[in-house]
Amino acid sequence: MSGLRNSALKFAEGNNAKFLGELEEFLTIPSISTDPEHKADLEQAAKWVATQLDRLGLDRVHVFPTGGHPVVYGEIKSPDQGALTVLVYGHYDVQPAEPLELWKTDAFEANIRGENLFARGASDMKGQVMASIKALESVLSAGKPPINLKFLIEGEEEIGSPNLAEFIRNNKQLLRADFALNPDTGMIGVDHPTITYALRGLAYFEVRVDGPDHDLHSGIYGGVVHNPAQALCELIAGMHDEQGRVTLPGFYDSVRTIDPDERSQLGRLPMGEDFYLAQTGTSALWGEKDFSPVERTGARPTLEVNGMYSGFIGEGSKTVLPAWAMAKISTRLVPDQDPDEVHQQLVQYFSEHTPDTVRYTVKKMVGSPASISDRKSVGVQAMQDAMERVWNKKPLFRREGGSVPVVVLFKDILDIDSVNCGFSLPDDNAHSPNEKLHLPTWKRGIDTLIHFIYNLENGSKV
Amino acid sequence: MSGLRNSALKFAEGNNAKFLGELEEFLTIPSISTDPEHKADLEQAAKWVATQLDRLGLDRVHVFPTGGHPVVYGEIKSPDQGALTVLVYGHYDVQPAEPLELWKTDAFEANIRGENLFARGASDMKGQVMASIKALESVLSAGKPPINLKFLIEGEEEIGSPNLAEFIRNNKQLLRADFALNPDTGMIGVDHPTITYALRGLAYFEVRVDGPDHDLHSGIYGGVVHNPAQALCELIAGMHDEQGRVTLPGFYDSVRTIDPDERSQLGRLPMGEDFYLAQTGTSALWGEKDFSPVERTGARPTLEVNGMYSGFIGEGSKTVLPAWAMAKISTRLVPDQDPDEVHQQLVQYFSEHTPDTVRYTVKKMVGSPASISDRKSVGVQAMQDAMERVWNKKPLFRREGGSVPVVVLFKDILDIDSVNCGFSLPDDNAHSPNEKLHLPTWKRGIDTLIHFIYNLENGSKV
Repeated sequence: MSGLRNSALKFAEGNNAKFLGELEEFLTIPSISTDPEHKADLEQAAKWVATQLDRLGLDRVHVFPTGGHPVVYGEIKSPDQGALTVLVYGHYDVQPAEPLELWKTDAFEANIRGENLFARGASDMKGQVMASIKALESVLSAGKPPINLKFLIEGEEEIGSPNLAEFIRNNKQLLRADFALNPDTGMIGVDHPTITYALRGLAYFEVRVDGPDHDLHSGIYGGVVHNPAQALCELIAGMHDEQGRVTLPGFYDSVRTIDPDERSQLGRLPMGEDFYLAQTGTSALWGEKDFSPVERTGARPTLEVNGMYSGFIGEGSKTVLPAWAMAKISTRLVPDQDPDEVHQQLVQYFSEHTPDTVRYTVKKMVGSPASISDRKSVGVQAMQDAMERVWNKKPLFRREGGSVPVVVLFKDILDIDSVNCGFSLPDDNAHSPNEKLHLPTWKRGIDTLIHFIYNLENGSKV
Repeated sequence: MSGLRNSALKFAEGNNAKFLGELEEFLTIPSISTDPEHKADLEQAAKWVATQLDRLGLDRVHVFPTGGHPVVYGEIKSPDQGALTVLVYGHYDVQPAEPLELWKTDAFEANIRGENLFARGASDMKGQVMASIKALESVLSAGKPPINLKFLIEGEEEIGSPNLAEFIRNNKQLLRADFALNPDTGMIGVDHPTITYALRGLAYFEVRVDGPDHDLHSGIYGGVVHNPAQALCELIAGMHDEQGRVTLPGFYDSVRTIDPDERSQLGRLPMGEDFYLAQTGTSALWGEKDFSPVERTGARPTLEVNGMYSGFIGEGSKTVLPAWAMAKISTRLVPDQDPDEVHQQLVQYFSEHTPDTVRYTVKKMVGSPASISDRKSVGVQAMQDAMERVWNKKPLFRREGGSVPVVVLFKDILDIDSVNCGFSLPDDNAHSPNEKLHLPTWKRGIDTLIHFIYNLENGSKV
């Protein structure tokens, strides 16, 4: 079938400008799932994706309503009765664009500077969704597909996919597949195609400390009241020890250790201290001293303050002693930590460390466990070969620090593994101002996915 | 002159509704000095006060422009050549009204419920300014004034009076007086007329901690970067020791000790733990264990977090590792601390405690030293007698935790002491939502100021 493969690759080459134009259109929709005010934009983005699938001639294209933002579905069958079925995952929602003043150009107006396309969602992950769709379009331009493909594109990834589990449970037959393809995990560098075999989990909380029953004048009452902002700082400061370890009771009890083999393999990744210094722009690295940066971000659990607020933060100098203080705190989890147990550990920490001068509240926002998968599966092998053909080198295998809850859901509910890859780069500013997509890499990504589809022809059905 | 005194008191009694109506009008002007957007409202409030003084027939009524918001001036001379001159201080600016959603009625629409008038500035201190003006109006209704009075009503008290020193320096002759009357320090309780003989100073700062050079994905980079919000919390947590003492290097070095006499006198104030628990609504008091609540809020220096911000604080769960974190931090000072020295101490604290994983900035916003004054002066004696006549009890003498920089300026530039009093109450919600003025106390305040003016007749010129 190398004729079809070459024809598909040629189509992709010849139609790159058209593909790019369609991506640019997709990026203008501000599909910010964290903000209820953007509900209509989420619906528009879902319809836009459905129209894309429809135009390719996919079957059963449908926008499924959920308790939150809708799920887009579409499928295509290979004439080959024994063909493998791949469930292609993606999300059409994006992170908020704030702080807006730091964007060089409008976050929702795609802007090309040099080799990069700038827009919120360009990298995470509208660009990746479009790479999958455009790879299939190229394959279909050449002829019948060698495998069955099912697309599931959701709209709640950036808020922890709260309604996806129910959707998958309710549509187990529809979604039945041999494995999933998840192009949301990216590459280590522009010359390093990457397959991610493990992902960290997430448990996200909002904590609040209340003191006086109203804001006080800091002159009249300063000295007799435990300032809630100070109390929250004391509690947050106590969540790490001097070695950078998280102090929540039992936090490390179920953490799987890194064995010497894995440690030596992770050590071969081209991501030392200099890499992380360059990517973050921080003055010095921080964290658990007994672990390398790659291990700390991939194979070790962490706790972060994602946001913090108390009192008067405007211009000037209001002399208030605030009534309360709030922080958004999240933990990144590794096998075999459980998000609910971490929730209990956080509550226990607050219960043990909060003085009687203030009161605390811990609210669980989202949670999903970490995952780790088989590096010898047919899907991973097909992806490894596809990457090798495009980049002329073997891909790297790594553990990823971010969380992809859907990988866990697919494993738990559909009992399938995911091939985690993607064509985003570490300096793409995902979740930050000036998010961008490296266009030459995106183009290689489309070619890779075309090879991946053909590589799976006559694959062993699981 | 008891005929005139009684006639003035009768006028005040008969015109209370009119006085109240004028106060309500004054309160509708949102003269928020911290917010540059309200510049025109500040000018309107200044003109409104000038019109009030003008209508009483005062001389040299003028709205003086300054580098910031204007100063209102007006004066009246007694026919008595040997009459004392009193400089009456006030401010027409108010604190921001945020958080607006906690107000039961509009912050800038006076609303009477029971014995209280609710509005931003009702207590701090438009109500107090109006009590002074209306006391003089009552005196003038009865005849010529027994003393010379000069009014100085500024518009920048709530932002630390940044332009007042220059105005006073440039107008030393105009403002020349035997002493000042400052009705901005309030009462301990509705049955406790109060004279404040000491005030705490203020040094206000904005501190910022920077880490990575842009917001990061907390999954990808969590574990190798010192989270700036966490680092700021660690720094803030370290600013107090376990005994509630401030840890800035040298912070207590120049703090004047409380002698046994003063300690026993402060011990007679009806403000024990229960008082502070009731006023603040906090679950348990906090602070230096070797000092009483009254001592901790009046005679001891403190450090407060007035506001704090980092990262994502909106709805939902953005997984950002923020690039920076900010806090507004202020210290309340007692004799003989120096605000500039405290600034140096804070900078030294940050320099000694900030790890090399983050960078810090300390910005000084405003600063003024504490003050302490003579309890046997002619002005204090006249106020003591006036309060005794209205309340039938001797006033209490106390130290105040808040800062009144103008008292320091009057002492430093004009070499005059201030009689610090006022008719606000501890539960007036100054600087908080639902600020209010207790109207029966306000009425007693006007009577007290009428007595005060007549008590100074034939007073010994300093």
